[in-house]
Amino acid sequence: MRFTSEQRLEDGVLEREFTLDGIPGILWTPASASAAVPVPLIMLGHPPLGLPTMYPRLAARARQAAAEGFAAAAVELPGSGARPRWAAAEQARADLRRAREAGGPVSDGIVDALVLPLVDRAVPETRTALDALLALPEIGGPVGYSGGVISVGIRLAVVEPRIVAAGLFAGSLVPRVMVEEARRVTIPLHVLLQWDDEGNDRQAALDLFDAFGSAEKTLSANMGGHTGVPSFAGQDAVGFFARHLR
Amino acid sequence: MRFTSEQRLEDGVLEREFTLDGIPGILWTPASASAAVPVPLIMLGHPPLGLPTMYPRLAARARQAAAEGFAAAAVELPGSGARPRWAAAEQARADLRRAREAGGPVSDGIVDALVLPLVDRAVPETRTALDALLALPEIGGPVGYSGGVISVGIRLAVVEPRIVAAGLFAGSLVPRVMVEEARRVTIPLHVLLQWDDEGNDRQAALDLFDAFGSAEKTLSANMGGHTGVPSFAGQDAVGFFARHLR
Repeated sequence: MRFTSEQRLEDGVLEREFTLDGIPGILWTPASASAAVPVPLIMLGHPPLGLPTMYPRLAARARQAAAEGFAAAAVELPGSGARPRWAAAEQARADLRRAREAGGPVSDGIVDALVLPLVDRAVPETRTALDALLALPEIGGPVGYSGGVISVGIRLAVVEPRIVAAGLFAGSLVPRVMVEEARRVTIPLHVLLQWDDEGNDRQAALDLFDAFGSAEKTLSANMGGHTGVPSFAGQDAVGFFARHLR
Repeated sequence: MRFTSEQRLEDGVLEREFTLDGIPGILWTPASASAAVPVPLIMLGHPPLGLPTMYPRLAARARQAAAEGFAAAAVELPGSGARPRWAAAEQARADLRRAREAGGPVSDGIVDALVLPLVDRAVPETRTALDALLALPEIGGPVGYSGGVISVGIRLAVVEPRIVAAGLFAGSLVPRVMVEEARRVTIPLHVLLQWDDEGNDRQAALDLFDAFGSAEKTLSANMGGHTGVPSFAGQDAVGFFARHLR
């Protein structure tokens, strides 16, 4: 991991861009973090729109986390931002766009083609990033995963034992096979749902919440569309991590 | 209103029993409350099991509210505790018990007979209690309603303008006419649902949440049965009131 830029934000949070195996990422650490007092880490999930596009929302979430004493990090998703596209993913995005424009249902085949390769590629990259981030003296774990793509969060929750709690955003299409995989999740969950998410099926999100195997899981559903998560809901999610990462 | 007992709890909360028109009630005020610094009030809803039975849970909720600087009060429901029963309510309870023992669905007629007379009697009594409580110099408003019976909360939210926010517990049978009434609720809501509530239909609770007319409403669903609301969910509800009553 190589840091490529560093700036101190006005609330004392240290924001550093890095690259790891050619993949860009951003790390935010609270002013309190040091080798003597290492802090827990929240990995920030995000939709595949590219880190530059996502930056304002990611930075806001990172600073909310830092205010609670947590580091936060985001890594660019495969096929997003400046990273190379691959043909099958482009095809799946085009198929989704066409299906939505036609107003019909989105077929299982499109959802699978869109999400499963992303999960298969993003999850090992996230785990590699965890190796590098947890090797920093100021970051001590445990680790939480926060946000979407929710299928990435599901897979990480199943395979990555360093992740002890997940705050998931039920705002993306979920392949049926990932709903089955959700039954194997056992870590505490805090699931955000936007009740009137224009691009997301509410009943599918409720079924997914029901499927999770965790003994502690909370569904926090709020009014508004996909990008309208109220700030108090973000604050409640931070409270969830405060309970489980401290 | 006449106070009949008074004790100072170890966290400084003042607990006073009172009677009002022959109806028993309990008022908890934080140590900070005074005529110079009057505090908001949370009316604590509760199932019709009688205040003595409900006391431990009510006192715990009141002390959580007091820790945030709020007074809290509960009044005995009609037909509960030491208050006189009435024949139709006893009949409805017996019909419900029989229907549940038979394992069949509970008919709309039973739900209506069980809940609607309770709403019609409890709501004006609660409003009278509000008159008396808000006349105390140490209580200043605004007022929140917290808990169940959820149909009582729905009616209060519609008819009582002093109630500016409600934290409702979706854990009791709701007459269809009350679901319709819920569309007229516009105050901010925080709705608790126990995902595996043994005596409550989950889909009916989701439909009720959908029906509420409020622009700000949160559904917080947690694992466990009717009485298993996790303490963090109670704390999130207090955070909701902190946003709306301060």
